[in-house]
Amino acid sequence: MTKQINRQWRLQRRPVGVAKESDFEWHEDGVPAPGPGQILVRNQYLSVDPISRAWMWQEETYLPPQPLGSVMRGVTLGIVEKSNHPKFAVGATVIGEFGWQDYAITDGASDFLMPLPSSAENSPTLHLGLLGHVGMTAYFGLLDIGKPKAGETLVVSSAAGAVGSLVGQIGKLYGCRVIGIAGSDAKCSWIKDHLGFDAAINYKVESVFKRLRQYCPRGIDVYFDNVGGTTLEDVLNLLNQHARIVVCGMVSLYNDVGGTLMFPAGPNNLLNLMTKRAKMEGFVCLDYRDRAAEAMETLTAWHDAGKIHYRLTVVEGLRNAPLALGKAFDGSSTGKLVVKMS
Amino acid sequence: MTKQINRQWRLQRRPVGVAKESDFEWHEDGVPAPGPGQILVRNQYLSVDPISRAWMWQEETYLPPQPLGSVMRGVTLGIVEKSNHPKFAVGATVIGEFGWQDYAITDGASDFLMPLPSSAENSPTLHLGLLGHVGMTAYFGLLDIGKPKAGETLVVSSAAGAVGSLVGQIGKLYGCRVIGIAGSDAKCSWIKDHLGFDAAINYKVESVFKRLRQYCPRGIDVYFDNVGGTTLEDVLNLLNQHARIVVCGMVSLYNDVGGTLMFPAGPNNLLNLMTKRAKMEGFVCLDYRDRAAEAMETLTAWHDAGKIHYRLTVVEGLRNAPLALGKAFDGSSTGKLVVKMS
Repeated sequence: MTKQINRQWRLQRRPVGVAKESDFEWHEDGVPAPGPGQILVRNQYLSVDPISRAWMWQEETYLPPQPLGSVMRGVTLGIVEKSNHPKFAVGATVIGEFGWQDYAITDGASDFLMPLPSSAENSPTLHLGLLGHVGMTAYFGLLDIGKPKAGETLVVSSAAGAVGSLVGQIGKLYGCRVIGIAGSDAKCSWIKDHLGFDAAINYKVESVFKRLRQYCPRGIDVYFDNVGGTTLEDVLNLLNQHARIVVCGMVSLYNDVGGTLMFPAGPNNLLNLMTKRAKMEGFVCLDYRDRAAEAMETLTAWHDAGKIHYRLTVVEGLRNAPLALGKAFDGSSTGKLVVKMS
Repeated sequence: MTKQINRQWRLQRRPVGVAKESDFEWHEDGVPAPGPGQILVRNQYLSVDPISRAWMWQEETYLPPQPLGSVMRGVTLGIVEKSNHPKFAVGATVIGEFGWQDYAITDGASDFLMPLPSSAENSPTLHLGLLGHVGMTAYFGLLDIGKPKAGETLVVSSAAGAVGSLVGQIGKLYGCRVIGIAGSDAKCSWIKDHLGFDAAINYKVESVFKRLRQYCPRGIDVYFDNVGGTTLEDVLNLLNQHARIVVCGMVSLYNDVGGTLMFPAGPNNLLNLMTKRAKMEGFVCLDYRDRAAEAMETLTAWHDAGKIHYRLTVVEGLRNAPLALGKAFDGSSTGKLVVKMS
């Protein structure tokens, strides 16, 4: 029997611009044994999320900065291989922030360890693509912060991404007119023709402002913002009274940082928040952990009824995780981006 | 008996930069007679508010653009001289948006005509300086949008202005630590030594960010923003979790417009709204008209008990109204800026 190896990507230096493979260090180690109260998880899938890039800043986000030299942070889905924990049996499927590595030891104290139902064994990606942190982000961000009402107009950016595609579908279930902004004709076609968005804007070839004005003849009531930047400025110019902007993320900024925060300037029309009595509010899905069951049950019911769909972009092999992170920014992934461990 | 004259300032052209007297046209006309259901008001005091400058844009704010050639819009306090309206007796004191002129005809349909208590006769400026739209703006903006809690840190910009000075005092009554930002040592001294602010920052000679960091060791929970610009960016970098930014106005921008909106870029750190789960929300005091009595009663009680104070900067003569508007931006006024009609 060959010795088991735990392969890891550790953060070697803080990237300037898009993260490169050389910003990480490949590390191979033995597989540790779980201590009392701990389990050993073998990761099957690694979720690659744009926000990972922000964790690499030396500045704090909603989490402390990823320490240099430590295993890169990331949500994974895995199987319990060994257990000294009464709640987690060997063979159970779990999800948590176990990092860019094959194996993780955890007692659940600091990495958001959560058990998954036994059905997860047959559809593991469902929990990364639709029901896990992606689902919670879309569900609570849209419903708790955006508060969409039937007949209102909802605009979503990164609309062919994991969160955005789900936000738009939930918006449709709530009776909204939904406009998605995405980065290719194929993505626009997917959200419009398959997911039921009312209109889609390819921001790489169309004027977002002109198209928004055309597709939102009654103005914008809710904007679910995943990108920030000029799109936010365009939306601010079309807000209805009492509009809500959900600040989920600002992907357009995450690579604009090298060492210290060097963001480009923001929108010049925030005064519209006053004239339109509008609000802009941020949230972090981690804050909704005690309501996770609500999101999971509702999303599962919608999914089982064929009312919501998701798509995966799968990158094979932990070795390619840095490459996968690049795909979160170069437009080459649709839906949930995951790395399938080999 | 000489013929009565109604002197008016009409908007002649849309100003570029600070409004100059030549942007207005001086007009003298006869005094009209009220028709059925109308009253004739003789204006005693004209309120000069920074937002007036934004009304001159060709772009809509929360009100339609001030039409060229029409009497400049403005809140005034006056006496009913003639009345064909059952609710308004001759001699009564009223407040409303009666414009930069000696006399106005109104039936109250479109200019927010409101009666004032008979006590107003003896203290007319109290209603412009503390109890009218200024009071409503401070009271509802801070309490309804900012929702300050005892022990929280409240930052106010334009803190020696009519609204800002009141916001800070209400914040103290609610048990907040209150930091004011103003434009001179005299203003800082007034809000700190006379109004009870915990600290004051003279933004013209001090680093706002460094001082905020020093004076807000536990971070910022509520920011009442009257100015926008770099101060907003500084505050965004010091927000606490679940902080609230009240977007009342952005005085720093009002003169940066000539013909089309040409605002400077906004803060580069709006992502902090996400990482801090914070919100930024605008409001317009007009929306609270049906709750005006609540604000007026509470503010009157506080004022009568000596708990809140106000200050006026009085410019003499309608002729000097354009000059007075300039004082709303050049730092030479403290508290409520009014024109006393001659």
